[in-house]
Amino acid sequence: MEINLVSDTVTKPTQEMLQAMFQAKVGDDVYKQDPTVNALEEKVAAMFGMEAALFFPSGTMANQTAIKLLTNPGEQVICDKWSHIYHYEGGGASFNSGVSCNLVDGDRGMITADLVKNAINDPEFYHAPLTSLVSIENTTNKGGGACYDIDVLKEIKQVCVQNKLKYHLDGARLWNALIAKKQSPRQFGELFDTISVCLSKGLGAPVGSVLVSDAATIKKALRVRKILGGGMRQAGYLAAAGIYALDNHVERLADDHRRAKELGGILKQLPWVASVEPVETNILIFSIQPYLSEKAIIEKLKTKGIHISSMGQGKLRIVTHLDYRQVMHEYVLEMLPKVSV
Amino acid sequence: MEINLVSDTVTKPTQEMLQAMFQAKVGDDVYKQDPTVNALEEKVAAMFGMEAALFFPSGTMANQTAIKLLTNPGEQVICDKWSHIYHYEGGGASFNSGVSCNLVDGDRGMITADLVKNAINDPEFYHAPLTSLVSIENTTNKGGGACYDIDVLKEIKQVCVQNKLKYHLDGARLWNALIAKKQSPRQFGELFDTISVCLSKGLGAPVGSVLVSDAATIKKALRVRKILGGGMRQAGYLAAAGIYALDNHVERLADDHRRAKELGGILKQLPWVASVEPVETNILIFSIQPYLSEKAIIEKLKTKGIHISSMGQGKLRIVTHLDYRQVMHEYVLEMLPKVSV
Amino acid sequence: MEINLVSDTVTKPTQEMLQAMFQAKVGDDVYKQDPTVNALEEKVAAMFGMEAALFFPSGTMANQTAIKLLTNPGEQVICDKWSHIYHYEGGGASFNSGVSCNLVDGDRGMITADLVKNAINDPEFYHAPLTSLVSIENTTNKGGGACYDIDVLKEIKQVCVQNKLKYHLDGARLWNALIAKKQSPRQFGELFDTISVCLSKGLGAPVGSVLVSDAATIKKALRVRKILGGGMRQAGYLAAAGIYALDNHVERLADDHRRAKELGGILKQLPWVASVEPVETNILIFSIQPYLSEKAIIEKLKTKGIHISSMGQGKLRIVTHLDYRQVMHEYVLEMLPKVSV
Amino acid sequence: MEINLVSDTVTKPTQEMLQAMFQAKVGDDVYKQDPTVNALEEKVAAMFGMEAALFFPSGTMANQTAIKLLTNPGEQVICDKWSHIYHYEGGGASFNSGVSCNLVDGDRGMITADLVKNAINDPEFYHAPLTSLVSIENTTNKGGGACYDIDVLKEIKQVCVQNKLKYHLDGARLWNALIAKKQSPRQFGELFDTISVCLSKGLGAPVGSVLVSDAATIKKALRVRKILGGGMRQAGYLAAAGIYALDNHVERLADDHRRAKELGGILKQLPWVASVEPVETNILIFSIQPYLSEKAIIEKLKTKGIHISSMGQGKLRIVTHLDYRQVMHEYVLEMLPKVSV
Repeated sequence: MEINLVSDTVTKPTQEMLQAMFQAKVGDDVYKQDPTVNALEEKVAAMFGMEAALFFPSGTMANQTAIKLLTNPGEQVICDKWSHIYHYEGGGASFNSGVSCNLVDGDRGMITADLVKNAINDPEFYHAPLTSLVSIENTTNKGGGACYDIDVLKEIKQVCVQNKLKYHLDGARLWNALIAKKQSPRQFGELFDTISVCLSKGLGAPVGSVLVSDAATIKKALRVRKILGGGMRQAGYLAAAGIYALDNHVERLADDHRRAKELGGILKQLPWVASVEPVETNILIFSIQPYLSEKAIIEKLKTKGIHISSMGQGKLRIVTHLDYRQVMHEYVLEMLPKVSV
Repeated sequence: MEINLVSDTVTKPTQEMLQAMFQAKVGDDVYKQDPTVNALEEKVAAMFGMEAALFFPSGTMANQTAIKLLTNPGEQVICDKWSHIYHYEGGGASFNSGVSCNLVDGDRGMITADLVKNAINDPEFYHAPLTSLVSIENTTNKGGGACYDIDVLKEIKQVCVQNKLKYHLDGARLWNALIAKKQSPRQFGELFDTISVCLSKGLGAPVGSVLVSDAATIKKALRVRKILGGGMRQAGYLAAAGIYALDNHVERLADDHRRAKELGGILKQLPWVASVEPVETNILIFSIQPYLSEKAIIEKLKTKGIHISSMGQGKLRIVTHLDYRQVMHEYVLEMLPKVSV
Repeated sequence: MEINLVSDTVTKPTQEMLQAMFQAKVGDDVYKQDPTVNALEEKVAAMFGMEAALFFPSGTMANQTAIKLLTNPGEQVICDKWSHIYHYEGGGASFNSGVSCNLVDGDRGMITADLVKNAINDPEFYHAPLTSLVSIENTTNKGGGACYDIDVLKEIKQVCVQNKLKYHLDGARLWNALIAKKQSPRQFGELFDTISVCLSKGLGAPVGSVLVSDAATIKKALRVRKILGGGMRQAGYLAAAGIYALDNHVERLADDHRRAKELGGILKQLPWVASVEPVETNILIFSIQPYLSEKAIIEKLKTKGIHISSMGQGKLRIVTHLDYRQVMHEYVLEMLPKVSV
Repeated sequence: MEINLVSDTVTKPTQEMLQAMFQAKVGDDVYKQDPTVNALEEKVAAMFGMEAALFFPSGTMANQTAIKLLTNPGEQVICDKWSHIYHYEGGGASFNSGVSCNLVDGDRGMITADLVKNAINDPEFYHAPLTSLVSIENTTNKGGGACYDIDVLKEIKQVCVQNKLKYHLDGARLWNALIAKKQSPRQFGELFDTISVCLSKGLGAPVGSVLVSDAATIKKALRVRKILGGGMRQAGYLAAAGIYALDNHVERLADDHRRAKELGGILKQLPWVASVEPVETNILIFSIQPYLSEKAIIEKLKTKGIHISSMGQGKLRIVTHLDYRQVMHEYVLEMLPKVSV
């Protein structure tokens, strides 16, 4: 039994999801004539109480499009020092939008209104880039799946309004936050100018993200998606998986969270584990004893069929997901204490 | 019976293709672990005798990536005045690569070595953009599906070599050219630095294009695809359709070509048709009598269930494809003379 | 005696202008504390009846800044096929602003409202770049110093207003147009969103151009100038030359125009001259007999100390200017008929 | 007596420098025909033992051009967290070159080989930007005029070579470092791919910077300067000031350094000064007692005619320069202890 806990991006469609995909009605989405894509976009927009939505081949493209629409070249984006948009989108913010990132020192990937306020460049001082956007990530990826209190997000919103900044949410794992914090999409739709959500991580669809915003912004997003090359023809097969996932795979994220917490509970008791970061959703980060090597631990676990990944500096990461089923979980819980390090 | 002759992008997968998709083995292509995507890329690279290939969500992204890799910002691309890369990629050449297009006045979308030679800016005259790339389209889209003689392409190649220019082929409909001219992919692989081919037009796959080149360029293309947001997760479902199409839908393009020619033959005889452009592949462009309106003709045909499109200036366009079957063709051949204009 | 008729950019400051330069009061213009730069900017803004102005090290930077401010990346600029912004600014429109040019086929570099109207891309057709700017040149450089009727410019303005397009004037040689057509700067200030004017061509200042517009746009222009690296420290020495030129070298452009016309009159009568284009300002373009080589004529004239330049395709160009004085003019008028070709 | 210690950019030409400017031979530098500009470029290239040099209207443009030439869009530059290229060039690195900055935590603006090594992204991990350039500043501006040991720069060079990174020196105040450390320009010319030096700060010329590199890079720099709009016509007036400054104002920087140190010595003894950072060149940074406000101190000094600036967080900055003469210095030394805070 090979158990992949490296990332929640590795899930494969269930039989039911596959069934939904191959019964999908499709059309040419480049002409906006794919009924399934249209249905997905309407569904997600309605969930967030926002006017419109657009389907994208990746979360990176959804984020990059939002940054493009909310900034002008030369301007600056405030975000946490671990942000996906800065570290893992290939330098796209600078490539696609000509903007720089002002990385602030948040807590587990989460920033605050005060951090934002202090990071804004004086708009009259024209030698420094003009600050124009705040981008937050929820849940945080490198921050170990931490999720924001809605009040913190509202405080940041206040700073944005006062300083005429736009506000983007990278919601690649927002579904996990909604479940963990018992929040509703509408609470987020009210706060942000643009929100990207991913269908291919916790939700288990094979491909796709959705950007939601007001109608005028989404109309412009269609142009940016075209320019970046994200216009697909009969994309309804992919959208069908997304609709199925929204209908069937959101509530069950609670299982992933419970399993991650249970793994954290076990790890805390092991002698080779130095500390375990708080587990809020499906990501679990823990540190090993300083005399041990990450690589050695990873190899040791691999011999048991358990695959996890390193984050550097003595930290290891486990991500639970749709394809990590209860039987696997019980096996891992049993194996972990038996690993001789 | 509704018969769509507007474009070959509207085709939907056959049952057999859907079956192939449904049974595809998939993995996370972002980590290059999707076996079906890998198989498609290897297959296409081998066909062209080139080192490597990369799957893209659209032909636009494949072209844009090629332009990015073969130019530096500020430089200039020589292409025909009707080029897809200038007119129909949303201004992407300037947006993504910061380059301008030098549009030359070709014949039915096809350019020549002399036209290229005359369009090259003197590299010592630094006030003008540095010419660095020639991009050709085969078959031509707006040129009515015309296809190049391989000798013309070799002559252009000579000019490129002499002037240190790169050479890109936008092969969205290259498969049609191969069939019409009895050429082989390897003849093109020998000439070009990069070639994009489309799986979702004449071949009938739902989504996807492939860029082929040398290994070093494709390695860089992976970065550009990431930056543009074209990295998809379990993309094997789409790739499976592409493999099926390459195995089963290339030879049959001859049917599309024959049908287009037969339609041209009928149209020539009709009083309301002023002239019919030469038909080489699956695109048929004809002009109507100057006293008639394009819109009226389109509406008239629509009442018979036949959908075609306008190109402006008294020209209409018909595109044959996989979903335009023989029974439909016979119906259209019969109907056309009966349309009272 | 060496007489340079190659371009009006080769002029050197007169003694009086030099005197004005070196008595200039200066300060750090990066902090907007150079009194002479400030005075120049106020003077030019007032001339055009516009709110504000900004000094630039070159006309290219003034134009590039205007394009940047009036477009977004990916959009399209309509301009004449001979435009300086497309041909002679190093590809800057694409490099700095990510836009493409839609080159229309004007008459001697001058376009019309109808040409503009036909060149606008349908804003709903998102595959094509969004048209957002019309840029005209007055006088035209490659068009042989032709100048627009103000009514034509007003008609183009109408099209801009109806289609929500911005409107830029590349006025590198606008001073010549004002004198030739007896127009006032305010007539232009009323029409355009931005106007660039050059101090270093006909006016004879050593360095500098000025961009005029509304206050909000000029405030943004300061940022763009900073980003492009056009912020200079004690620039007042250059600005002083500009002020002197505006006060003393505008009216005298009439001399340059008269001399260019007189040269045209002589050339018309020479057997080796095939035709002379209409001379409206200080630029004179003429064609030689087809059996002659441009290079040979240029060399022949050089032996008499007269330097002119070739435009290719059998055309030669003469430009009169501040340093081409009456005594030189009389010499050239006398010599031209004596050149044995 | 008003004494400006805010920056060394505020200096005005001496009578002798003005004389040199006034007598300069000039030509059209856009055609590379200005003899004084050519002489300056040759002089600076020779000083550094490098092949070629190019004159720029600003240090920002010289740096931006270097970054452009040494990177491709999407890539990443390693630099200190206080770098001028990140903070004070308007976001130009992202605007002009599409790159992001990886800000490392140096000491007083100076980074080390180890910091660089740790900041390099794994080139195989294509999700992160490709690291391609290291840019250092010497002396450091925000770091208080600190200067590098040449051995540290050599160690960083080793890391660059091993990792195929380019290496740029922002030498806006390199002349100060040369004097303070008794280094020669050639020691720097051997290490760096490109070096920018400023003529308008410590050296007191009104306008201009020079970029030095190999001949091929400078040839490309000419294109980039054109695109950015930095091509000036009769720029020899400015270049003459630069030549004069290099011949007459370099050695005297020792005076500025001595005066800055003497000011530091006095400040250390004052009760309202909490600490004084080490003074290596002409920049002096000191912290005031936490119960005092920067603004109040600045206002107090202003009443004595002494102008200094704030750096935020309780820090004040003094910069000595050419126009801060001995008589002023003695006045300030006398006044400082008398300021009642």
